[in-house]
Amino acid sequence: MENPLSIQLLDKAVEELHRLPGIGRKTALRLALFLLTQKEEMVENFGNTLIDFRKHIHHCHCCHNLSDSETCPICASPRRDHGTICVVSDIRDVMAIENTGMFNGVYHVLGGLINPIAGIGPSQLNIGDLIERLSQNPVQEVIMALPATHEGDTTAFYIGKQIRPLKIKLTSIAKGIAIGDDLEYTDEITLGRSLANRTDFQI
Amino acid sequence: MENPLSIQLLDKAVEELHRLPGIGRKTALRLALFLLTQKEEMVENFGNTLIDFRKHIHHCHCCHNLSDSETCPICASPRRDHGTICVVSDIRDVMAIENTGMFNGVYHVLGGLINPIAGIGPSQLNIGDLIERLSQNPVQEVIMALPATHEGDTTAFYIGKQIRPLKIKLTSIAKGIAIGDDLEYTDEITLGRSLANRTDFQI
Repeated sequence: MENPLSIQLLDKAVEELHRLPGIGRKTALRLALFLLTQKEEMVENFGNTLIDFRKHIHHCHCCHNLSDSETCPICASPRRDHGTICVVSDIRDVMAIENTGMFNGVYHVLGGLINPIAGIGPSQLNIGDLIERLSQNPVQEVIMALPATHEGDTTAFYIGKQIRPLKIKLTSIAKGIAIGDDLEYTDEITLGRSLANRTDFQI
Repeated sequence: MENPLSIQLLDKAVEELHRLPGIGRKTALRLALFLLTQKEEMVENFGNTLIDFRKHIHHCHCCHNLSDSETCPICASPRRDHGTICVVSDIRDVMAIENTGMFNGVYHVLGGLINPIAGIGPSQLNIGDLIERLSQNPVQEVIMALPATHEGDTTAFYIGKQIRPLKIKLTSIAKGIAIGDDLEYTDEITLGRSLANRTDFQI
């Protein structure tokens, strides 16, 4: 809906909210009018929390995960296995893996994937950092946990080629049919790969 | 998705974004991470614009519409017909009607509808104000432009009863089938009412 009232403060608020991904103008207007129904202190707190967040959050100097401090709690923990590094694209992938409770190693967040169409090359990602980290620390295994997409495969291939000379064990998370999935509804490529990458049946 | 990393700044930012209506935790996290990809000045501007908006926006003292100043541009305009007042529930209704370009009168924004279940009574709405406005100004017509819902009807009835003694012409926007609608897909109540409220056919 257009704003035919030309109220500048409203227009500016809608414009700012509309910058957020997935928030159209109509939703932005709804959010702005919602903020008006809230107490002034609540809105002040809302704005300042987000400003503080952007200003004071750290990227862990070691793994590029988000952190309140210079080093993230995972890299700082003596209980984690620092010899196993899981390479992920995004901080949300760290959260997803942590939520499984199945991984006790540490991470390396690339901050994206190689995507020539979007103009993202290896130099814009934390790949150089990873290689340096691997050559300076005793690491037994690097696990690639990248998306099963074209960009994920390209990135894994690029990184793999650089890691090979370091003689570190390189693995990838398993790609196959999801737990609970029926075979007849699984796409052909996934099913084909899960056949080709079949594992020993454990009795 | 849970945040297993216990990063306080992130948690707080997600919590604040999650306050917005229709924004779940997962979306809030996506928005927070988006803000991290933006320049610090952009996020500062984002937060401060919303704080300023809440702090400095006015409700027009006459019609309760939003405004940059004490009196809204519609109430301040000498080109509008101040003898015709359109009563609406919400500022978005003002925008919707302005966008039609079909109305040259002024508005009165109630700020909601009577809804006993939600605990909203007449005293919480700008109804007393409307009656005072009508008794102190020469007004020829009041147009009820309230939603065609139970709450809208209740509110219109309540206001109508208070306006009747003032001997001002009272009308309601037409309720019937929408332009472009097929009769067979129109619900029975709407179709029944549009039959009962049939108008002269203009040749």
